Amino acid sequence: MSDPRQPLLVTMGDAAGIGPETIVKAWLQDGLRDAVVIGDPAVLRRAGSPLTAVIETPADALQLPPGCLPVLLPPGLLPGLAALPLGVIDGRNGAAAARCIEHAVHLVQRGEAAALVTAPIHKAAWSAAGVRYPGHTEMLQALAAAVAPGAPLPAVRMMLANEELRVVLVTIHTSLRLAIDGVTFDAVLQTLRIAHRAAAAWQDGPPRIAVAGLNPHAGEGGLFGDEEIRIIGPAVQAAVAEGIQASGPYAPDTVFMRARRGEFDLVVAMTHDHGLIPVKYLGVEQGVNITLGLPFVRTSPDHGTAFDIAGKGLADPSSLIAALRMARRLVAAAH
Amino acid sequence: MSDPRQPLLVTMGDAAGIGPETIVKAWLQDGLRDAVVIGDPAVLRRAGSPLTAVIETPADALQLPPGCLPVLLPPGLLPGLAALPLGVIDGRNGAAAARCIEHAVHLVQRGEAAALVTAPIHKAAWSAAGVRYPGHTEMLQALAAAVAPGAPLPAVRMMLANEELRVVLVTIHTSLRLAIDGVTFDAVLQTLRIAHRAAAAWQDGPPRIAVAGLNPHAGEGGLFGDEEIRIIGPAVQAAVAEGIQASGPYAPDTVFMRARRGEFDLVVAMTHDHGLIPVKYLGVEQGVNITLGLPFVRTSPDHGTAFDIAGKGLADPSSLIAALRMARRLVAAAH
Repeated sequence: MSDPRQPLLVTMGDAAGIGPETIVKAWLQDGLRDAVVIGDPAVLRRAGSPLTAVIETPADALQLPPGCLPVLLPPGLLPGLAALPLGVIDGRNGAAAARCIEHAVHLVQRGEAAALVTAPIHKAAWSAAGVRYPGHTEMLQALAAAVAPGAPLPAVRMMLANEELRVVLVTIHTSLRLAIDGVTFDAVLQTLRIAHRAAAAWQDGPPRIAVAGLNPHAGEGGLFGDEEIRIIGPAVQAAVAEGIQASGPYAPDTVFMRARRGEFDLVVAMTHDHGLIPVKYLGVEQGVNITLGLPFVRTSPDHGTAFDIAGKGLADPSSLIAALRMARRLVAAAH
Repeated sequence: MSDPRQPLLVTMGDAAGIGPETIVKAWLQDGLRDAVVIGDPAVLRRAGSPLTAVIETPADALQLPPGCLPVLLPPGLLPGLAALPLGVIDGRNGAAAARCIEHAVHLVQRGEAAALVTAPIHKAAWSAAGVRYPGHTEMLQALAAAVAPGAPLPAVRMMLANEELRVVLVTIHTSLRLAIDGVTFDAVLQTLRIAHRAAAAWQDGPPRIAVAGLNPHAGEGGLFGDEEIRIIGPAVQAAVAEGIQASGPYAPDTVFMRARRGEFDLVVAMTHDHGLIPVKYLGVEQGVNITLGLPFVRTSPDHGTAFDIAGKGLADPSSLIAALRMARRLVAAAH
């Protein structure tokens, strides 16, 4: 569905957070000539945009003179967002952020844009607005399924990537105790399938996927937990039988270092922090979040709304710039 | 008890592993003039030592001409170890490794040596020898308590350090499920006390200790687990009330990056892999393991016996060299 000649869409995220500021800075530093912001032009002006051009369709962006930030105002967006205080949870900002995502997905699915890059939303603002999704991923999953009514939700996985390391997570936003329960044969095998399919889109040859264990020393032969023997090992073997070049489970404390050195193309991690600690260790700026398993490309910066520094001019656009570049790469690779 | 003018003791570890080879290489590269090997001279000759000098007391090492590796043969060591195959589990090597540690602790506790650096042992070889400890830490704990009969075991904690990051672990060698159960108020507070006391020995001013949470986003206000609210937060507050400069719990996925950048002097991690993944991520060579809470300084390299490469000349002595340097630093700082 993605057409690399079409623009990327960048949703503005929560207007009270650093999202709009990072968008304007990314545009000033990197140029967003092939990207369109889905959001409120007044919010982007408040965030420092010298010149915004309100456009009607994504394709209009390609006709703009340089120096204009193309903004597409989604129908139904609440007015007056730029008058709300920065750094404060507000349901109106939550509703607007959700509306932008909804409209952006609609445009991507209609074939009017190549991919989606999302600035951060605030969970509590969504909750205040009655938005029923815990985060982007779940909302995108539901919107993707909505094209075919009654269709099951697509199985999606969160991938975090920087220049050195790519990690796909089996479990994400749940307590560590429940995450352990979430490490099932099906969940691990499904993750391997999704990771394999995604990685095959951006590299030649089968991706070499390392699977990290759950327990210290990957269980030390059952002495420190048996999930590796009962669940993870068999899931790796099942993936191998399907032709996926997976191996492991490996000791979590050294597998990421080995991947960083080039031994593997990506690592499947069982828990949020096993995977995210190494991705973020060298600096959060370059990290990009990629949702695998959706029918379109979606990336996002690897940080939140950072209400504490919103409006202070301190936000770093590096992760958003990396997310834009990654989205372009994925669109080009999938084509 | 540690006297910085006295030699360090290096136990040879499992003779079938890479321990003896790393010792000889460290001696050739770094000079071990102020260190004495506790082990079997024949094993060290097999590992490539050009000239070994068998000495009677640690102090004898200081009288040796350069170019001699000083080796102290502990009484009661089984003969013929050098004839056993490399890379194979053998109870005789297990028993010998344990005997070396026992004798080394005896010498340190008698005040004849400054500190202990241990080359890796093999758990299965210990088990085959009937050595009842699961690892060095537990054996050293028991030997340290033995000085005062009937005394409770000293509370010890594993610290991993490299040039960029220092981590102290609340739980170590157990399944992740049991590790969660091991995150108690007492365990976290005790870890903070031990970490504070140890760090105060090597730096001026109170160490800034960051406490990592257990759950993703440190529980996200209770949404992803409540251990931060019920257990970890209160333990941090109790430590602060005792004058310890602790803070947190912080999101595990960013706290190590923040410590690396200098915001904290060390991080207390709840699980083995939360702590070890970042320490090892940049390369396992420079990592040093330090046992905190013992009445003497003990460090070790951050790798195992590596039976797969034993005797092949491939072992990297960097971690052992770092362990020797760290032991010297700690002895000097404690003095």
